[in-house]
Amino acid sequence: MKTIEWVNNRIRIIDQRELPLRLKYITIGDLDSLCRSIKAMRIRGAPALGAAAGWGVYLGIKNSKARDGIAFNRQVMKVADYIGRSRPTARNLFWGLERMIEASQKNKNKSVATLKKILFKEARQIMKEDQKACRRIGSFGAALINKRDALLTICNAGILATIDYGTALGIIYSASCQGKKIKVFVCETRPMLQGARLTTWELKRHGVDVTLICDSMAASLMAQGKIKKVFTGADRIAANGDAANKIGTYALAVLARHHKVPFYIAAPASTFDLNIKNGRGIPIEQRDKREVTELFFKKPIAGKDIKVFNPAFDITPHHLISGMITDKGIIRPPYIKNIRKIIA
Amino acid sequence: MKTIEWVNNRIRIIDQRELPLRLKYITIGDLDSLCRSIKAMRIRGAPALGAAAGWGVYLGIKNSKARDGIAFNRQVMKVADYIGRSRPTARNLFWGLERMIEASQKNKNKSVATLKKILFKEARQIMKEDQKACRRIGSFGAALINKRDALLTICNAGILATIDYGTALGIIYSASCQGKKIKVFVCETRPMLQGARLTTWELKRHGVDVTLICDSMAASLMAQGKIKKVFTGADRIAANGDAANKIGTYALAVLARHHKVPFYIAAPASTFDLNIKNGRGIPIEQRDKREVTELFFKKPIAGKDIKVFNPAFDITPHHLISGMITDKGIIRPPYIKNIRKIIA
Repeated sequence: MKTIEWVNNRIRIIDQRELPLRLKYITIGDLDSLCRSIKAMRIRGAPALGAAAGWGVYLGIKNSKARDGIAFNRQVMKVADYIGRSRPTARNLFWGLERMIEASQKNKNKSVATLKKILFKEARQIMKEDQKACRRIGSFGAALINKRDALLTICNAGILATIDYGTALGIIYSASCQGKKIKVFVCETRPMLQGARLTTWELKRHGVDVTLICDSMAASLMAQGKIKKVFTGADRIAANGDAANKIGTYALAVLARHHKVPFYIAAPASTFDLNIKNGRGIPIEQRDKREVTELFFKKPIAGKDIKVFNPAFDITPHHLISGMITDKGIIRPPYIKNIRKIIA
Repeated sequence: MKTIEWVNNRIRIIDQRELPLRLKYITIGDLDSLCRSIKAMRIRGAPALGAAAGWGVYLGIKNSKARDGIAFNRQVMKVADYIGRSRPTARNLFWGLERMIEASQKNKNKSVATLKKILFKEARQIMKEDQKACRRIGSFGAALINKRDALLTICNAGILATIDYGTALGIIYSASCQGKKIKVFVCETRPMLQGARLTTWELKRHGVDVTLICDSMAASLMAQGKIKKVFTGADRIAANGDAANKIGTYALAVLARHHKVPFYIAAPASTFDLNIKNGRGIPIEQRDKREVTELFFKKPIAGKDIKVFNPAFDITPHHLISGMITDKGIIRPPYIKNIRKIIA
């Protein structure tokens, strides 16, 4: 099972809108389809979007008729700009685009044919690095988990959000492999239900003891002392440690603090955005109201004329975060100092 | 529009499972159908359940062939016990049953025909009193609302949960009538979506500015300073002020405290249960997992074999509640003293 791959000159992805009922792969051969798939969240998750960005740029220029590197690079920029407009919050998407642009610009004096090969390698390299980064996050994070811990997570920070191991769920897989019997409660993650549809599916598939809850039930579990730690992914982390993640994460962080439950986020270095000072600088995507009122339902759950507020992400301020598990080690407060030390 | 009525020797209710798409009334002529409708939440909301209890007992004994008051009273007890098993948490259901039992036992020396008339009047009386209680809650509560307040609520504590005015929403209707321009954010209230399906529908119908959010988005709104007060209903309130209400309410109370937003509950005296010392004594109903994974959806959102935790209610400890708006006035801390003073 591969979340994203390059096969037969196309991007092949798991269509995450079809899970958990079927594991369906789709192939994407043009830029428009890729951007539509990103917008519709057929592919999602910060690290997977980084890989999609890499392959997307390659897809956009592989048939380029540019006469020289300068013209070619103009096309690369245009393609990257187009992909960048698909979703605004996840840092990895832009990080992937920047890597492709940099690889191309550094080599602008080479032939167009060589440049294409370089970009192909760069896209493949982004995937390889993410794979390694997730494994390292898993190893670092597993040390935080005790034998019979009950954990809470939201959204999907697993195999489906990365190349093949996951960030927050990678930690759970690592701890499971060490023989620690873990119980995981998964928030369903309205409105797109990634927790219900994706996370329970992949945890169960890997033999983890998993229980689904509605997002509104997490507080109750914490009050009953049933949650020992919270682990979530992140979509973008500012220089001071403020972290954007799936809407609902911030509530879990506040609830965790109230109940004295440690709250951790897990993300590779590529999710950090040291150019952004704090959470206020992170763009938050507002999505279609129909995700809330219609998308998954037999019939609309609210009138057509009802206003809906549908932000895809929220910001957890650094002071509510107990630690950040990265591929370069676990970062602890003070974040403003330690993020720069470990990530920069 | 009447949530519950006695028409042509039957109970007539709005089928709340059909909203918001259609306003459908159903009539209920036997005890089994009533209990099924309660379990399926075709009728719901603590005060409305109190009224359903009253009419339910009458429905159960109106054709009684008992020879005397003693035998009749045994039947009343049996019917009440049966209705009481339909849902465990809402105090008003039991309060309604107890009132019917008391009216019957007090008059056990009268003829069976007279007893039937007495019980009919008692059931009608429960409705009348609730109507008045809601109006009074509305008046008391409206004083807490400022001109352009933005409020947050969860579930449905409105017309549909009562006889015809609502508790938490009754306050909003009262304030609206006073010309206060209020903006109301409504949590969709997973898993049964009463906020999305019922509350947005009835607020809109009454010209209130309403915006639907997923439960997971409330924290974000509070962090942005967009919520000035939280108002919710209650299903049972213990002697110390701990309050059971729809799952998700406790999270809102914790979030409100964190963001220094006042958190109020609104309920008639019939919702208080002074025999229960604190929240630990309130029974919490666990409901069918299919409510979470299947009920409203085009296709299941999680695998059939996935465990689900589905409590219908949670307990908000009294120390997180800024005030309780009742038909006898607003109760402020210390609750242990003031509840007894005002309610007992």
